[in-house]
Amino acid sequence: MTAAHTGHSGEDTLIARYFRPLASDPAAFNLVDDAAALQTAGEDLVITTDAIVEGVHFLPDDPPDTIARKALRVNLSDLAAKGAAPAGFTLTLALRAADDAWLGPFAQALGDDARVFRCPLLGGDTVSTPGPLMISVTAFGRLPRATMVPRTAGRAGDRLCVTGSIGDAALGLDVLRGGAVATTLAGLPALRDAVIARYRVPEVRLAVAEAVRSYAHAAMDISDGLAGDLAKLCAASGVSAQVEVAAVPLSAAGKLALAQGAATLETVLAGGDDYEVLCAVPEVHCASFTAAAASAGVPVTIIGTLVAGSAPPAFLGSDGQPVVLTRRSYSHF
Amino acid sequence: MTAAHTGHSGEDTLIARYFRPLASDPAAFNLVDDAAALQTAGEDLVITTDAIVEGVHFLPDDPPDTIARKALRVNLSDLAAKGAAPAGFTLTLALRAADDAWLGPFAQALGDDARVFRCPLLGGDTVSTPGPLMISVTAFGRLPRATMVPRTAGRAGDRLCVTGSIGDAALGLDVLRGGAVATTLAGLPALRDAVIARYRVPEVRLAVAEAVRSYAHAAMDISDGLAGDLAKLCAASGVSAQVEVAAVPLSAAGKLALAQGAATLETVLAGGDDYEVLCAVPEVHCASFTAAAASAGVPVTIIGTLVAGSAPPAFLGSDGQPVVLTRRSYSHF
Repeated sequence: MTAAHTGHSGEDTLIARYFRPLASDPAAFNLVDDAAALQTAGEDLVITTDAIVEGVHFLPDDPPDTIARKALRVNLSDLAAKGAAPAGFTLTLALRAADDAWLGPFAQALGDDARVFRCPLLGGDTVSTPGPLMISVTAFGRLPRATMVPRTAGRAGDRLCVTGSIGDAALGLDVLRGGAVATTLAGLPALRDAVIARYRVPEVRLAVAEAVRSYAHAAMDISDGLAGDLAKLCAASGVSAQVEVAAVPLSAAGKLALAQGAATLETVLAGGDDYEVLCAVPEVHCASFTAAAASAGVPVTIIGTLVAGSAPPAFLGSDGQPVVLTRRSYSHF
Repeated sequence: MTAAHTGHSGEDTLIARYFRPLASDPAAFNLVDDAAALQTAGEDLVITTDAIVEGVHFLPDDPPDTIARKALRVNLSDLAAKGAAPAGFTLTLALRAADDAWLGPFAQALGDDARVFRCPLLGGDTVSTPGPLMISVTAFGRLPRATMVPRTAGRAGDRLCVTGSIGDAALGLDVLRGGAVATTLAGLPALRDAVIARYRVPEVRLAVAEAVRSYAHAAMDISDGLAGDLAKLCAASGVSAQVEVAAVPLSAAGKLALAQGAATLETVLAGGDDYEVLCAVPEVHCASFTAAAASAGVPVTIIGTLVAGSAPPAFLGSDGQPVVLTRRSYSHF
């Protein structure tokens, strides 16, 4: 992302007007250069990339401010789960046109989140496309050398913890699509708005990053559904897992939608877009982890245990028997 | 970019099959994790992002191997101009479908370039899109603290140098579109193929990165055309420039196309996609810079001088009078 002081192109004007105010870090050189230069001091730099596409990760009529926040937050979510503190991000924005009515609130909200989460814009690229809007963010975080919390180091016996509540974003998407959940929540605007908000603007769990780094063997953020992402963590760690379905934290909307049959267990457990942190914490550290998270203002729930073996994770009903899930996660292909 | 050992999704299979072989650096954790962790040691990390879009930066029937190389090389070009040595890259790939016949040669060529330029894949994201193919790369380079060569530090009196030859990629695009250059080069397949190759697969000038860092006050890569990009460098440095048009290095194809009127001066000077390095070198270091570049195998030509003032750069004809350019650079909006 580059812009000259007297640049003549529309791209330069666009960058100067909307994005230069977000490039508050000296490493960004006010977006006047072709590159940023991030100072380092022997720490590890965590790098994560996630893109969101119109019609796939957000809806064509989602407001531009929520699209901006989602684009950044799905990446901050990875930093949180890896135990890192944000250092900045780059942005690739593929637009059909340079529309001020869209770019104004988009850039404003992106700047607000960048400030709140101390993650300044470092650079990027703005390109025209005849296709859907696409926003790709690469985010950077810092942590002490060799302390990134991996997916691969969960051990049998570790307790499985999740932050916040599961399934709300999938319910929000169902509402936006006019599905059965919309009917269930029709008379409950606060719940309806809450699940829509969860779909459009993920919670950012950076407040637990340090606790995750201090206490968890393994962690990841839940982007494609709890069931599928837990299967990935288990496979990467060479273990299996048992989850008590009744322990999975649901919001009031989630409980209601399930009780009334408006949502299936698959919607909640495999719907995706949760962006909560899933982590494997040794039993001995569970109390400390939960307390540290609570003091950071983030609720944590123990939902199960890692066990030896290579079977897919089992989701156990109240009778102790495995519940059969017909679908475990969202896949793009 | 993440993939579990027993992942069930198409995305995981795609990543494991095509991209894991490119993730040779330990920082990439074999793409099993949500993030990479790059070790640092007090150096500066240069970060640059450039995306290429089907129909905008490459043609729908360009071969997948050349698309891959272009996506990476337009970013390596920025690292070269900033004086940095590559450390790795992340990839966002927006695809309509997971097509093996396309992904195979794409990943193979990307891996070949990553190996040759010592720039391993560190992570990324693969998403589905109904729109055009898009490849966004964020590349990382290392250099000693505070030694990144900026756009902003050119001074009046500095000589302007460019690597390689200018305008060939624009001629190549004209050939691929069946323009006048296609007719001119119809009986000269070697020249025709050479300019097409320049459009599809930029030269990588990393061999001069150290010389640029040692001797240049300011530098940038030429992506949107020499005239426009020089204007940006001048504006960023608070100076103007005089360029002798006759000194601008042209290939045999470029000379022929201009001589026969198949290409205009605007095509050559403002067509873009050159990905050569433009730099401002103090007179006293010019010989050393040119010699260092030559010993690195990269031809360098002095095309003009930075001068005081804020006027747009002047391109002087053989009569010493400014040539009027109707267009100076490519703009997306």
